[in-house]
Amino acid sequence: MEDFITVEEYESEAHKRLDRMALDYYRSGADEEITLRANREAFLDFRIMPRFLRDVSQIKLDTFELFGHKMTCPLGVSPTAMHKLGHPQGELATAKAVASFGTVMILSTLSSTSIEDIASAEPDLIKLFQLYLFKDRNVSISMIRRAEQAGFKALVLTVDAPQFGLRRRDIRNKFKVASDFLANFRQQDDQSIHQLDYIDSSMNWSDITWLKENTKLPIFIKGILSPDDAQLAIDYQVDGIVVSNHGGRQLDCAPASVSISS
Amino acid sequence: MEDFITVEEYESEAHKRLDRMALDYYRSGADEEITLRANREAFLDFRIMPRFLRDVSQIKLDTFELFGHKMTCPLGVSPTAMHKLGHPQGELATAKAVASFGTVMILSTLSSTSIEDIASAEPDLIKLFQLYLFKDRNVSISMIRRAEQAGFKALVLTVDAPQFGLRRRDIRNKFKVASDFLANFRQQDDQSIHQLDYIDSSMNWSDITWLKENTKLPIFIKGILSPDDAQLAIDYQVDGIVVSNHGGRQLDCAPASVSISS
Amino acid sequence: MEDFITVEEYESEAHKRLDRMALDYYRSGADEEITLRANREAFLDFRIMPRFLRDVSQIKLDTFELFGHKMTCPLGVSPTAMHKLGHPQGELATAKAVASFGTVMILSTLSSTSIEDIASAEPDLIKLFQLYLFKDRNVSISMIRRAEQAGFKALVLTVDAPQFGLRRRDIRNKFKVASDFLANFRQQDDQSIHQLDYIDSSMNWSDITWLKENTKLPIFIKGILSPDDAQLAIDYQVDGIVVSNHGGRQLDCAPASVSISS
Amino acid sequence: MEDFITVEEYESEAHKRLDRMALDYYRSGADEEITLRANREAFLDFRIMPRFLRDVSQIKLDTFELFGHKMTCPLGVSPTAMHKLGHPQGELATAKAVASFGTVMILSTLSSTSIEDIASAEPDLIKLFQLYLFKDRNVSISMIRRAEQAGFKALVLTVDAPQFGLRRRDIRNKFKVASDFLANFRQQDDQSIHQLDYIDSSMNWSDITWLKENTKLPIFIKGILSPDDAQLAIDYQVDGIVVSNHGGRQLDCAPASVSISS
Repeated sequence: MEDFITVEEYESEAHKRLDRMALDYYRSGADEEITLRANREAFLDFRIMPRFLRDVSQIKLDTFELFGHKMTCPLGVSPTAMHKLGHPQGELATAKAVASFGTVMILSTLSSTSIEDIASAEPDLIKLFQLYLFKDRNVSISMIRRAEQAGFKALVLTVDAPQFGLRRRDIRNKFKVASDFLANFRQQDDQSIHQLDYIDSSMNWSDITWLKENTKLPIFIKGILSPDDAQLAIDYQVDGIVVSNHGGRQLDCAPASVSISS
Repeated sequence: MEDFITVEEYESEAHKRLDRMALDYYRSGADEEITLRANREAFLDFRIMPRFLRDVSQIKLDTFELFGHKMTCPLGVSPTAMHKLGHPQGELATAKAVASFGTVMILSTLSSTSIEDIASAEPDLIKLFQLYLFKDRNVSISMIRRAEQAGFKALVLTVDAPQFGLRRRDIRNKFKVASDFLANFRQQDDQSIHQLDYIDSSMNWSDITWLKENTKLPIFIKGILSPDDAQLAIDYQVDGIVVSNHGGRQLDCAPASVSISS
Repeated sequence: MEDFITVEEYESEAHKRLDRMALDYYRSGADEEITLRANREAFLDFRIMPRFLRDVSQIKLDTFELFGHKMTCPLGVSPTAMHKLGHPQGELATAKAVASFGTVMILSTLSSTSIEDIASAEPDLIKLFQLYLFKDRNVSISMIRRAEQAGFKALVLTVDAPQFGLRRRDIRNKFKVASDFLANFRQQDDQSIHQLDYIDSSMNWSDITWLKENTKLPIFIKGILSPDDAQLAIDYQVDGIVVSNHGGRQLDCAPASVSISS
Repeated sequence: MEDFITVEEYESEAHKRLDRMALDYYRSGADEEITLRANREAFLDFRIMPRFLRDVSQIKLDTFELFGHKMTCPLGVSPTAMHKLGHPQGELATAKAVASFGTVMILSTLSSTSIEDIASAEPDLIKLFQLYLFKDRNVSISMIRRAEQAGFKALVLTVDAPQFGLRRRDIRNKFKVASDFLANFRQQDDQSIHQLDYIDSSMNWSDITWLKENTKLPIFIKGILSPDDAQLAIDYQVDGIVVSNHGGRQLDCAPASVSISS
C-alpha cells in the first residue's frame, strides 16, 4: 500500500479487505445509480485551458481559512457514516489523519465514534458536526448541546434526505448494524433510531429559524443543488451551504454535483 | 420472487419461465428496434433538479381521478395482447391485481380473456376497452356494444397500427396462436381476423366522427406522437389521447415517447 | 437463404461464401474507414415523426419516373465494380433482377460483364452507364459510343475518384484481377488500364463542357457532397447529380452522405 | 516491417521490441491520460467537405519554407527525449531520416545524442534546438552557445512544463536513465540535472526578453494553447509558437491540441 499512487488502487485494495456488507454500503448509490455514475463522469467533461509563462515557483494550497484557522488545503473530509465498518479505529483514525494534515472534518451524526471521544482525542482538530433533524426534537437538541460542549465549530444540517435512498445492495444484504454501533445515540433515545426512521420529513425552512434560535453555532446546510434553494439559504441567513447530491446515495436522477450546467 | 426488488429481476425470471415464442412476442420491437431502445434510453437523459426543505411528511400518489373514481396512483395498465401467453390466468390475473391496487386497466381487443369474463370477475374495476377499427365495421360495432354492456368506461382507439410492425423474431418463430385464443372474436367474425388482416388501414379522422355517432362512451385515441395530431384530436373533440409509440412495436425510427424534444 | 429477412443475414452468408480477396474488396472503405462507419451510423440518427389517421389503404412506391419510364420504386442499383467476384453470372444476374423488379441499373465502367452483353441480355432494362474520364480520351469516347449504341439512357460521370482510395485490406491482399476480367476494356486500350492508373486527375468543370459536346446522352455527375459543387453542376447544365461519398471508399473523413448537417 | 502500411502496425511492433521502461516512457500521458486520449479522439471529429472537378493532377506538399529552405512537406519532427531508449543509433538515425526526407527536426534538450554529434553527422539538415530554462542560467547559456555554433537555426523554448507531469507508469517503473545518457549535459552541469529538477518554474514573460537579449537566434515558444498566450507571444515579439499540449504528458485535462473549440 505504500506504493499506491492512485485512488483506484486504494479502492481495489478495499474491495479485497472489506466484508461484503460494509463494501456494498460504502459503494452503493440510490436506485439505478444514475446519479452515482454521473458524479464520476462529470469530472471527465472538464477541460482546463492552461496559461503559461507565469512564475509558479511559489505555489500554495493554504488559501482557505475556516473559523480563523488557516486550512493547509481547500479540501476537507465530508461527513460519512460508520467508519468502524472499515477499520476498528473508525472515526478516531480519520480525525487523527485530518488533524495531522491540518484541514477540517465534519463528523457524521451516524458516526461509530462519539462526539466526545473525537473531541478528547483530537482537541485541536477543526471539526464540524453533521446534523439531522429528528422527529423527536429533544434528541436533536441533546446532540447540538453535546457538539457545542465538545468544541465543534459549526453545525452542518443535511437537508437532502427526508426519505432515505433505496440502495439495492443494502436491501439485498439486509444491511444493519448492532444497536450500539451508532455511537452518538444513547439508550434513552427513541427506539425508532434503530429502525432508521428518525428523520423528520416535515422539515422545512421554518426549521432553519428554529435551529438558529436554539444554538449559537454557525449553521451550514448540506445537500443544496438548486440555485433557488441557494438563494433561500441566503434569505434565511444560513452561514454556508454544501453543494452536494449526497454522493448519489439519496435521490437518483439528480444532476451531478459538479455538472457544468444542470 | 418475493425477494425481487427491481423490474430487471422479474424480466430475468420471465426469460426463464416463458416459452420462446411468447417471450419473443413480448420483448420484440419493429424492424431494427431503434425505437424500442430509444424508449428505454430516453429515461436516462432526465435529470430532476431536487428542491429541499419542503415538508414531505405527507406525500400522496392519489392525485388522479378517472370517471369520478380516485385512482390510487397516476399509473394504469396499458392494453397489451394475450396475457395467457404468460400465465394460464391471463387477463383475469391482471384485472384482479389492478382492482386490488385501485387503478385503471385498458383491456386489449387482442386479449385472451373475453370482455364479459373480465367484467363479471372484476365488476368494480375501472376498465377501458382498447379498440381497433376493423375492415368489417360490424365486428367493431359488435365489440363496442359488448364493452358498453359490460360496463367499460371508455373506448381507447389505437391509431398507430394501420399496418402491423415487422417484428423479426415473430417472423422467424412463425408466431401464431390457436384460432380461439383471441377471446373477443366470435366464430361468425370475419375469417381474416385469424390472419391478422383485420385492421382498416383506410381509417382517418372522419372515422372519429363516425365512431362518436355510434357510441355514447368517451373516446380516447392511443398512439399520438405529433403535436399536430394532438391538435387535430382536440379539433375532432376526442376525450383524451395516449402519447405512445406502441412500445416501438409498430413503426421503427419513431421518437421515444418520453423524449424531451423530438 | 429463402428464410433471410434482414440484410445482415445476407451479409453474414456472403462472408462465408466469398473468397477473402473479393470479400475484402467489397466491404472495405478508404484509410481508417471513418466515413464508411459514418455512412452507416448516420441512419441511426434519423427520427421520423409519424402522423396517423390518414387513409393508408392505398400506398405506392412507383412515384418515380426516369426517361419516360415509371420505376416501380424510387430505388435503383448504383454502379459497383466486378460483380463476377461474387458470382459467375456477375452483372447479368444483377441486370436480370433489376429488370424483373422494374427499376434502374447503372452499369460500372469496371464491370466484369460488357456493355454489349448486358444490353443484349436485358434489352428492356432502363440502364445508365457509369463513366470515368480517362487520360486517353479515345478510350472514353469509345466507351461512350458503345453505351449509346447499346441503348443506355444516360452517362453517370464519377467525379469523386481523381485518386483511388487506399483500402488497407486490398493493399494487404495485393488485390488484382486477371487482365481480361474488366469486360469493358479492349486489347487496344492503354496498358495503364490494367494498372488502375487510367483516371485523368486533371478532370475539371471544363471537361463537363467537353463531354456535353461529345455525346447527346444526358449527363449525371456522381460523387457531389458540397452544396457549392451542386450549384456548379446546375451552372454547367448537367442533367442530374448523385449525392454520394462513394461508400466511404475514396476519401476518408468525408461526411456521411445522408448526414443531416455537414 | 517493409509491409507495414499503418502507424498502428509500427506501434504494435514497437510494443514487442521495446523494453517495458522505454515503452512506458514513450506511451504515457500525465495522470489519468484524459488529454492523451483527447488528443487522439479529436481527430475523429473532423469532417472534411470535399470539392471535386478541380484539376488535381499536380499536387505538391512543399508549400512550406523555413529559414529560406523549402521543406518537402509541411510536417517536421517535434522534439522528443532520449531516442536511444528505442534504438542504439538514437537521434542520429532520426536526423538522417529527416535530412533525407528534406524537412525539419527539433532536437530535444533531453536528447541522447549531443548537439555537436547531430550537427557533424547531418550538417545540411535544417535543425532547431528545443530549450528549457534552467535554474542555473549558465547551463542554459552554455547550451544556447553550443546550438548557435553547431548551426541550429532557432531555439524552441518549451513553456508548458514548469512542473513535470506525473506519469503513473514511469513512477511505478521508477524510470531513470544512466547519468551520462542525456548527452547535452556535461559533468560540470548542476547535479540537479540528474534529478530532473533543473527547470526554472519561475520562468515568465520577462524571461523571453532576457532570452532575446542573449541570442541572435529566432525564438519559438512551444506549448501555447490559450489564444491569450498567443497574443502575448506576439506582444513579446517571439518569432513563432508551437500549439501543443506536450502530447498530454504534462498537464492532464488540457484541451486536445487540435480540438475544434476549447
